[in-house]
Amino acid sequence: MSGEIINKLENVTINDKADKGDVDDDFVDPWTVVSKSETGIDYDKLIKKFGSSKIDQELLDRFEKVTGKKVHHFLRRGIVFSHRDMHSILNQVEAGKPFYLYTGRGPSSHSMHIGHLVPFILCKWLQDVFNVPLVIQMTDDEKFMWKDLKMEEAQKMTMENVKDIIAIGFDVEKTFIFSDLTYIGQCPEFYQNMVKIQKCVTFNQVKGIFGFDDSSVIGKVAFPSVQATPALSTSFPHIFKGKKVPCLIPCAIDQDPYFRMTRDVTPRLGFKKPALLHSTFFPALQGAQTKMSASDSNTTIYLNDTPKQLKNKVNKHAFSGGQSTVEEHRRVGGNCDVDIAYQYLTFFLEDDDRLEQIRKDYTSGALLTGELKKILIDTLTPIVTRHQERRAKITDEVLKQFMTPRKLAFDV
Amino acid sequence: MSGEIINKLENVTINDKADKGDVDDDFVDPWTVVSKSETGIDYDKLIKKFGSSKIDQELLDRFEKVTGKKVHHFLRRGIVFSHRDMHSILNQVEAGKPFYLYTGRGPSSHSMHIGHLVPFILCKWLQDVFNVPLVIQMTDDEKFMWKDLKMEEAQKMTMENVKDIIAIGFDVEKTFIFSDLTYIGQCPEFYQNMVKIQKCVTFNQVKGIFGFDDSSVIGKVAFPSVQATPALSTSFPHIFKGKKVPCLIPCAIDQDPYFRMTRDVTPRLGFKKPALLHSTFFPALQGAQTKMSASDSNTTIYLNDTPKQLKNKVNKHAFSGGQSTVEEHRRVGGNCDVDIAYQYLTFFLEDDDRLEQIRKDYTSGALLTGELKKILIDTLTPIVTRHQERRAKITDEVLKQFMTPRKLAFDV
Repeated sequence: MSGEIINKLENVTINDKADKGDVDDDFVDPWTVVSKSETGIDYDKLIKKFGSSKIDQELLDRFEKVTGKKVHHFLRRGIVFSHRDMHSILNQVEAGKPFYLYTGRGPSSHSMHIGHLVPFILCKWLQDVFNVPLVIQMTDDEKFMWKDLKMEEAQKMTMENVKDIIAIGFDVEKTFIFSDLTYIGQCPEFYQNMVKIQKCVTFNQVKGIFGFDDSSVIGKVAFPSVQATPALSTSFPHIFKGKKVPCLIPCAIDQDPYFRMTRDVTPRLGFKKPALLHSTFFPALQGAQTKMSASDSNTTIYLNDTPKQLKNKVNKHAFSGGQSTVEEHRRVGGNCDVDIAYQYLTFFLEDDDRLEQIRKDYTSGALLTGELKKILIDTLTPIVTRHQERRAKITDEVLKQFMTPRKLAFDV
Repeated sequence: MSGEIINKLENVTINDKADKGDVDDDFVDPWTVVSKSETGIDYDKLIKKFGSSKIDQELLDRFEKVTGKKVHHFLRRGIVFSHRDMHSILNQVEAGKPFYLYTGRGPSSHSMHIGHLVPFILCKWLQDVFNVPLVIQMTDDEKFMWKDLKMEEAQKMTMENVKDIIAIGFDVEKTFIFSDLTYIGQCPEFYQNMVKIQKCVTFNQVKGIFGFDDSSVIGKVAFPSVQATPALSTSFPHIFKGKKVPCLIPCAIDQDPYFRMTRDVTPRLGFKKPALLHSTFFPALQGAQTKMSASDSNTTIYLNDTPKQLKNKVNKHAFSGGQSTVEEHRRVGGNCDVDIAYQYLTFFLEDDDRLEQIRKDYTSGALLTGELKKILIDTLTPIVTRHQERRAKITDEVLKQFMTPRKLAFDV
């Protein structure tokens, strides 16, 4: 999984985009997200293009009926906006049958940023609500393959990122986190499933799906099979004892190409297609249209930023939907659709009523940009600070516990 | 490794051959060996084409000087005819430094045949003479990928073939035999080396070397990295404890494309290029030009043939270089260059003087075809019978011993 996204132009030249015939359109694949609009990607268009289903009120109602709980604000607010086969997972739950969650992350050199929390916060909520096992794949092999770095660096980055993931609060009894570069060499069943998938997918197919060409290294060509493999429950014999258990994959929409391929293959191997929940991208501070640069620490808020850094970044860099003078703002009002402080609040402020009040006040001009930014700072600072406190307590022993192939508190 | 060869036309159409521009030439790659000549492949031409070195008298003399032993008849008789960097292995030995042997086999559904013994007999001799560790890769993942069979079948074939290999007489203290489908999931260092190799090789390269195209499945595209990986000693941490130890690969010449690729990659990963010893192909009973069909049990002698089957096959099917009547044979003499009974004796009759006498007598017409065939039957029958006796004694426990990743009797 790549995971870090918004309008990431890396590896893509104008020619590439022109070749793909997407010049006037948004472009989304696991390595590239390009949008022309200042409100970012048109997600309704993306649903049509990818052939997934919009999460509608009917599904949300069913979610609440089946779980007996209010759905997470990511679902309520359209941050998790698209799905594949979510109804069949709910059928499974209603029938009292098991399923499991699978998500992943391509480890990054920097600390993870607050946007990276999104799929994991969703997974934690799903794990708690459904009481199901979760497997988290750290694709250090992918990072090594795509980036100019040593294998040891990819492995070190993995360990640092895993600490951030554990700090989100996962239950060690229900969560298995694994690095490809370690676990594939610890579990023959995983490699066997990889090989089975590799036998079902041609170079032509990965060329079409991922844009590989003849100059691509063979590790890149084979990698989609590595990301597909955790969708087969038999890849985790210590958890599922060889049984076939349906899989639900929460991920950012840019990962969908991997899982479209996976869904194509799994029935041929006698498994159900994995279900999917797709989330939107987390916008850069500079706005939904801007490139997020890994080397520019001002485009986002890292989980290891100090309160002062966080405050400065929001105040200096968060793109504002407000007007240029207080007078004009009071008169015309602000635009929440492009205002990054407001956008971030939709992710991290749980109180629906308060968020709605903020939206009204900012739109009317009653709330000024500086005031809105202060609300964001006051919302994010304790989240980041508490994350840092939890992270500091994660010992190597805890890391090892989560990453050891083992039985989970789950009966099949 | 594929291993079973002679004039195997499977997977190749005339058009394929025409495309490859080899219509008037021998064609050799890991899946195809095609010759127009009734004496079979022109090995001198192949040496030039592949860019390897002929094993000359100077190298043989050096072999004997360094080891203090007479070289094996495979080397003396040009059955092992070509090499890469064999002098550097001998330098290593002279300097008192270690090296190791690596060979492999693509498991087959039938019993192994006597031709399959060749690389293993050579390995056993090299292991005994140099007192070095040997790793044997069973490419069950390759067989599964290339053939229409279930993974369990490929794994079962592996176990049956491994019994035949162990029966050749390898020292369990110095030999590690592994199945890809099992060992890759037991050793993170192996998968890590695979990934490192996969980062160094493009689709274009494997397309050029192995003839893959856009319709090839991605498992085939990635497989060359699997066969390259055992040439890195760090893929066997239990044996070499992470040290870099030079590697010598005895194999049939059709496997050279894999190892040309491997030799291209290893220096970029900080390893020496593996050295190679190439053997010729083992001819089919019907002659060096005939297609050996896996489904036609009359083209070769299996290691599980009864003495009666062996006798019948030699008498009925072994292509004869003799004349059509006794009178004419006495007058004109036989042609050892195309006579399969004689060719087989060069592989299995160790006594040089006796072999030379047979050659003279058959060429002069003093020895009749029936008599020559009887010599072959009398030579092969005890070899096959004793092999069967040894194989019958190989328990699951012995199999497990050879295939368990472990320390060998070897200090690094």
